[in-house]
Parts: sequence; structure tokens; C-alpha cells
Amino acid sequence: MRKSAADRFKHLFNRSLVFVRHQNQQHNSSSPLHYRLLSSAHFSSMASDSPFPVTAQNINPQVLQCQYAVRGEIVTLAQNLQKDLQANPGSHSFDEIIYCNIGNPQSLGQQPITFFREVLALCDYPALLDKSETQGLFSADSIERAWQIVEQIPGRATGAYSHSQGIQGLRDTIAAGIQERDGFPANANDIFLTDGASPAVHMMMQLLIRSENDGILCPIPQYPLYSASITLHGGHLVPYYLDEATGWGLEVSEVKKQLEDAKSKGISVRALVVINPGNPTGQVLAEENQRDIVEFCKQEGLVLLADEVYQENVYVPEKKFHSFKKVSRSMGYGDDDISLVSFQSVSKGYHGECGKRGGYMEVTGFSPDVREQIYKVSSVNLCSNITGQILASLVMSPPKVGDESYESFMAEKGSILSSLATRAKSLEEALNKLEGVTCNKAEGAMYLFPQIRLPKKAIEAAEAENTAPDAFYCKRLLNATGVVVVPGSGFGQVPGTWHFRCTILPQEDKIPAIVTRLTEFHEKFMDEFRD
Amino acid sequence: MRKSAADRFKHLFNRSLVFVRHQNQQHNSSSPLHYRLLSSAHFSSMASDSPFPVTAQNINPQVLQCQYAVRGEIVTLAQNLQKDLQANPGSHSFDEIIYCNIGNPQSLGQQPITFFREVLALCDYPALLDKSETQGLFSADSIERAWQIVEQIPGRATGAYSHSQGIQGLRDTIAAGIQERDGFPANANDIFLTDGASPAVHMMMQLLIRSENDGILCPIPQYPLYSASITLHGGHLVPYYLDEATGWGLEVSEVKKQLEDAKSKGISVRALVVINPGNPTGQVLAEENQRDIVEFCKQEGLVLLADEVYQENVYVPEKKFHSFKKVSRSMGYGDDDISLVSFQSVSKGYHGECGKRGGYMEVTGFSPDVREQIYKVSSVNLCSNITGQILASLVMSPPKVGDESYESFMAEKGSILSSLATRAKSLEEALNKLEGVTCNKAEGAMYLFPQIRLPKKAIEAAEAENTAPDAFYCKRLLNATGVVVVPGSGFGQVPGTWHFRCTILPQEDKIPAIVTRLTEFHEKFMDEFRD
Repeated sequence: MRKSAADRFKHLFNRSLVFVRHQNQQHNSSSPLHYRLLSSAHFSSMASDSPFPVTAQNINPQVLQCQYAVRGEIVTLAQNLQKDLQANPGSHSFDEIIYCNIGNPQSLGQQPITFFREVLALCDYPALLDKSETQGLFSADSIERAWQIVEQIPGRATGAYSHSQGIQGLRDTIAAGIQERDGFPANANDIFLTDGASPAVHMMMQLLIRSENDGILCPIPQYPLYSASITLHGGHLVPYYLDEATGWGLEVSEVKKQLEDAKSKGISVRALVVINPGNPTGQVLAEENQRDIVEFCKQEGLVLLADEVYQENVYVPEKKFHSFKKVSRSMGYGDDDISLVSFQSVSKGYHGECGKRGGYMEVTGFSPDVREQIYKVSSVNLCSNITGQILASLVMSPPKVGDESYESFMAEKGSILSSLATRAKSLEEALNKLEGVTCNKAEGAMYLFPQIRLPKKAIEAAEAENTAPDAFYCKRLLNATGVVVVPGSGFGQVPGTWHFRCTILPQEDKIPAIVTRLTEFHEKFMDEFRD
Repeated sequence: MRKSAADRFKHLFNRSLVFVRHQNQQHNSSSPLHYRLLSSAHFSSMASDSPFPVTAQNINPQVLQCQYAVRGEIVTLAQNLQKDLQANPGSHSFDEIIYCNIGNPQSLGQQPITFFREVLALCDYPALLDKSETQGLFSADSIERAWQIVEQIPGRATGAYSHSQGIQGLRDTIAAGIQERDGFPANANDIFLTDGASPAVHMMMQLLIRSENDGILCPIPQYPLYSASITLHGGHLVPYYLDEATGWGLEVSEVKKQLEDAKSKGISVRALVVINPGNPTGQVLAEENQRDIVEFCKQEGLVLLADEVYQENVYVPEKKFHSFKKVSRSMGYGDDDISLVSFQSVSKGYHGECGKRGGYMEVTGFSPDVREQIYKVSSVNLCSNITGQILASLVMSPPKVGDESYESFMAEKGSILSSLATRAKSLEEALNKLEGVTCNKAEGAMYLFPQIRLPKKAIEAAEAENTAPDAFYCKRLLNATGVVVVPGSGFGQVPGTWHFRCTILPQEDKIPAIVTRLTEFHEKFMDEFRD
């Protein structure tokens, strides 16, 4: 069944390619995920008699084509509903919008880790370090850490541009943290600090993609940053399917089949994206599976782009996070054997510091002249933000046994992670009870990606509204409950199947009400559309 | 004379285009500024028998071609010298490296503005707001401002992703600040907060450039972010020359001539970049001149990309900064008449908070569907960092009369700006005393861009080393004095003329020593090479 589904997917993919070429008569990549958005209705809505020199018809078609569903149409609808609720309280059957569309823990009430914020405040205003009152307000180890960091910055200039890869001392700390995590050496020169993981992904796509004939292997479902970035850089997304039936398993045979298929069409495939733990799919890869992937990339000469931003988010005792760096080194592969980029972010984990925009990529197995090019591109934007840089170093080097903050830090961390595990389980169980819904376990990350088997009548109603069936369901859900989830079509799915992504992030005390609202909505929806 | 020089420049430009096409057989833009770096020596140095799948020969040629001289070769040399000095003190005739290559004030000892840092620390660790000791450590208005800001953030979640354009309340504050500055309305919906001005410039280039046939008019000399961004996005830099003889005057007739010339070659010119106050040239445009530019853009249907990041940095009483928004509104032109993007940054001004990566663009005169596309591209990276967002709001809304911090804030600001004016004048006078050197006044911004008339023997010596003559001079200067300046070839200059860019940022007490070292070096250099 998966084979023919993949073929249907490719048919849509090719159709969209032809369509876009026809519309723009320009070199274009095509993204298989967003064919709906390239409908003629969309294009004909653009005014051609605009008083403005720039119109949607004459901008870069790659921008026009790029989509990012996580903040797409459904979020705009939610924001409008929220304004409506504020202006007219009681106008809807719910009194707040619950944003389950995006992995943004602190927006839903998660509190920041105290130690991290103490250090950031001290580094932002180092004059505090000289004042006696500070002792009463901050923990001893946060003061000590802030001193260390300020001393690592040349001239203690916390407001200066840093080295384009980030402050050397912070990169040393991060490398030591990686080494401790993996048990294999890490080098500060391989670390490029970035404003979250997204700019790092863009940087690698920019480096690798030369034209629409360059392909990047991406899981389907995928996090739409990848499809958006590939589209913006004019490349070709080569999809490989995760197997929903085996808990979103990643089979190298499937990746190989898609690689061969792409090659036969003249696509030069440059890299393989793996998201582990999975987004939106929540699976945690087994080490054995990772070895196969490393071996495959080595054999095929593919860069392995390892999205490891959820490395702290593993909720099941039987699974453990292993970095691809550790796995490849444990196979005896060094810097000359495998080109590997690992992405990490301060936005995820137990800390969820999304707004600080911190992160890094560890770049190994590239020649010195290519590394020089990566450095050059980093230097055009000068450096990533220093607050985010500091936070990235703290995440990779949290308080240790004996530090004054250690116990409170471990309590905060443990409470967040165990609550996330509880929430994941409650929501998964509730979803699996719904008629026609099946949901794999969230072993890790921050999402559930249930499949909804929509009745034919619902699909027809969606089509009558010129809406994808999963988007139709999600909009109905939003309007009925205030809960915002993202249609599966934004992430990619086997054609003819429908899903949505829902974060596990609402606070624990809100979960029962969400479950009730979701269940009631779903029952009514099915009553309305059941075949 | 300028005519024939411009023609020579174009000849080099075209030659480099042909060369790159030949090398890469790919769609390529060409940057006229960096022909030296595309020499065959450079290409042949790339290994073709690399063990790595990614080599300099098979990466995106736009990345390979892009150059950013401000952090280029000369800075790498300086960093190596610095390491050498640390390892072997006394090994050189100077004991420190003075980085005059980049507008990075705090790296050279400028202190941050206290009020700004107080507010940032409180927002980073809002728990402080509830503690009584805080009153003794922070000013009353910084506490009040932090409260205001924290309350403006939905759920007080200072660690959450914000709206993709930035936190609404901060954008309201910024819009109010623009309105106060200009005397014309500003709208928070037009503000896009960004991680410094650089990503904002990239975003506009990405939107406007469809292919190598799309051109962007840029001043020569220019800040190399523009050439780098145009190259990375595959477009065509259309140069217009600033007139050094009239203090780097911007003549609309010259811009028009270059526009017509580009059009006659089939280039579709989409936008005009104006940097005011000028970088690297330091001139401040007269309002009359700005009116002509606005009228020209309106007539020609060009987007006006106004780099206004040095708006606070004006050092001469006879000149005043006027935003292009104010100028266009005062001409009676509204949102339907002119497409205008104004870039602002927290990195410059009197505050110089480079490492915080804050900034915004104010986008006016674009159709709703194009604005939607700009929003979409912003949303792919989720949001800019919150610390930078807060700082951008503070810069546009500093303490006011009656606030506890007002007097100390004004003293800090005044002292920095008046010292910058003094430093600019001292360095300009010193440079003008050197044999064969002429230097226009730095009316604003942070740079001097002196012309050095190099003796023929020096030019020959440079050519023998396969180095541009200005780079040859700058490397000699660095090796002899430890002072890092950037060769004019990194910014563009009339062919056959040579310049360098030097910041005015070393602390005042260091200026006399720098002048002495520079003067001694120059005399020796001239003695060695004088014709």
C-alpha cells in the first residue's frame, strides 16, 4: 500500500512542478507538500494593476512558493479569534485559545530554569557582579558562572560582536559538554553558534544547493523548516517516508529506493536530513538504526544533517538519545569518513527558551576550504546574539553535583520532563480513543501526530470549500474548541491519509479540559459526517 | 575622469562575469568588487581528489563568490598576530591589536548605556521585579519599564517565541518613537523586528531578486553586506558612484545614468540602496538631495532601501539626520506612492549594542499580498531574539525628562557622541597630513574612508605579491602597527584609486598613539616606495 501511495504523492509532485514552471517561466524547485497552495485560484487572486512596483507576481517565485504551516493560515485564524474573544468575551463556547501548533513551551506557562535566567541577567548587567546586594538575590554558582563567562569575553564586552562562530570560551564549554555527552572528543572550532537552529539549517542548504537539480532527502512527515528552506534555496526535496505502522520507523531501504529514484531523474542528492527525536512524529531512533544511516551516508557520499534539537526530550525508559556524532565515532568513523552536521537549539529540551534564539551546529567531516566558506557566510551576519550564545553554553553545561543550584535545578528539570511525559501519555491515550483515530506514542520531542480516518462526506465537504480535508478538520476543531493544531498536509503525509500535529505542551492541569473538548468535538464531527 | 573610471570598472565587472560563467557553467551573478578573488589561482587551489563529498568545487557558486571584507583576510591575519602576541609577548613592535575594521564600539572599550542594561537584566530574570533588594540596585524607571515590557508579553513569557514580526507592544513603542522622530504617523504593523539589520537586508534581497537579470542599485563605495547579499541571492549589483570630490555626494544624475545603462543591458532594476549617514563614507545627506532621491524612486518604480542605522551618529552641527520616511511624507507621498524600507539597528548609534543583534525594518508602500509574503518569510525563522527586540524598543524610546535615569542617561549618551565627534576630527586631521592622503570629513556614521595615492613602485610590489595595492598597504600597516583597517577594494572604489576604511572607535586616550604609529608607518612606507 505504501508503494502506490508514494507514487500518487510523486504524481502530485510532478504536476505541481509543471504547474509552477508554467506560471512563472523561471527556474523553480517544487515542493510536493504544498500543491494546494499553488492552485490557479491563488494565482488569479493577485492583482496585476497594482499601484506598487512590487507585486506578488514579480517577487522571487521561491518566496511565493515557500510555505511554513506551523505559523500558517490556521494561526492567523486563531489570532483573529483571540482578538474577537478579547473584544467580545463570551462570544464563543471557549474562553481562551490554546496554541498547540508550535513547540513554544513558555507561551503555555512553562517557567524558565532559574539558574539560566540568573546567569543571563548578571551577564546583561555585569555591574551587578560588583555589588554586595547581588549575593542575596542570586545563587553563588550563578554569580561564579557569570564571572567566568564575562571573563571569557574579550574586554568583558558583553555588547560587542563576537567571533563569527561565537565567543571562543563559550564554544570551548559547548565542546566539553558534547564530549561529556558522547564520550568522544569535540572541538570548539567545529562549533558555529547561531540564532536558533533555523539559521543553521538555512546556512547548510545555502551551501549545498546549487540549482533545482540538487536534492535533499527529507523524512515525510518532516518539520516544514526543511521544505521551506529547500524551496527558498531553489533545491529539490527528495522525500523518504517514515513508516507509521512501525511507530514512524526509518528504514534505510526506503531511503535508498528514493535516492535511486531521484538519481534516475537526474537529481544530484547532496544530503540526508534525519530528525531525531522526530518532529512531528516523536519517535526516538534505535542506535542500530542510526548505524545503518551513518553507513548509508558514508557509502553514498551524502552529508548527514542531524536535527538533534530534541535530544533532552525522551520520555520512555526503553529509548535513549544517541547523537549521530557518537554513533559514527563508535563505528570508528572519524573526520575523514563522514560529513556530519548536528543541529542543537536552546528552544527545546526541558528549558524551552524559544525567544532567546540560541543554538549551534557542530560541523565535522568537511574540508578546510569548505569550512572557510561556512565561516565566511556566518561572518556576513557578523555573529549570533550573545544572550543566545551564553544560553547555549549553559544548556550544554548545567549545574553539577555540589553547586549551590544543583538540587533546585535538577528539581525544575525533572518536574518539567516528567510532566511532559505524563502529558504526552494522556493526550496519546485520549486520541487513540477517538473514532477512526490512531496515534503513535510520543517517545520523544514535543508532538503527537495522530492519523484521522476522515469519512468520505467530510472529504467532500472540505473539497467543496477548496480546503484540504485535514485543514478542514483542524479549522472546525479550532472554531469549536479554541485548540490550535496544524494539519498534516503542512508536514507531508502518505497521500490519502490525514493527520494533524498537536504539541504536548499545555500545562498538566489543562489537559483534562482539552481532552474533553477534543472528544466532544470529534464525536459531533463524526456524527455530522459519518458515512 | 569619473566617466572613464566607471567604464574601466564595468570592464572588470564584465570580465569577471564571463570568467565565473566559464568556471561554473551555472547561473551566476557577478560582483564587481571582488574580481581578484576569482582569479584562476584561487580556483586551481581547490582539491579535486578530496575525500569529502562536499568540496569548494561543488558548493553553491554564489556562496563561493560572496565576499565580506570587513571580516575577511585582514582580520584573520590580525587574529593570528594576536595569538602570536599572547604566546610571545614583545615579539612585535606593538603590544596590542587595535581593531578599526568594524563598527564594534564596545569591543574597544565603549561602555553600555546603564538604563538599557538594567531593563534587559530585569526582563531576563523577572523574578527580580518582585524582590525588595531590587529597588536598591536598579533605577525606578528601569524597574517601571521592565514591568511595562513584561506585561506587554503575552503570559509574561519572556522566553517564548513572539509574533513573527516581534512583540506587539514593543512594535507599538517603536512606532511611537518613529512618529516622534519624524512628526508623521507610523504603524506597528509596518515594523518587522530582526536580529540586527543584516537579516532584514537579506530578507528584502530574497524577496526582490528572481535571477541574475534583476539588479539592485548600490552606492560605490558601499557596505559589503549589500554586495554579499546580492551575490548570495543571485542578483546583479548595479553600481552608482558617490562623488569623493564633493564629500561623497550622491548625485541623482549619476544614479539615473547607471539605471539607464543597466536597463539597456536587459537588467531589471528593482531597488535603490541608500546608506545615510554613509558607510564607509560618513556623509550625511541634505534633505533636498533626499527629496530628489524619493522623486527618482517614485518615477522609476524602484523600491527605496534606506539603510538608516547610523541615524543617531551625526557629528557636525550643520547637518541633521532626516529619515526617508519623513522626507517622503513631507513631500505629500503616502503609502500608495513610494515603496520604502527603512533599516534600523541597535548595533550603532551611541549605544553600540552589536552583540545583542536587535533591529527592525519599517516596511511601507507594499501591497497586502507582498506584505503577507514578507511575513511568511519572517515566520520561517519564527522570530528575532527577545533581548534584541526589547533593546530596539528602548533605543526608540529612551528615558524622558523627569525619569530617574534621564540625567545620567543623557550624560552617558552625550559623552559618547561628543567623544566620537572629537575622535573623528582628530583622525581625519591626522590622515589629511599624510603624504598623498586625502580624507573627507566623517559627518556621521563611524568611519573614515581616506584615499591613498600609492606610488607606482608600491603598486608593482603589490602586484608581484598577487595582492590588491590597498590590501598590500593595509597588511603592511597591520604588521607594523597592529592597527586593523579594511582595504577600499572591499567596499568598491573608482578603479585606479585606493582607499581604506578606518573606524573612529578606539577610545579617545588611544587616538594620539594610533596617530603617531600611523604617521610613522606611512612615512616609512612612502620612503620605501616613493617614485
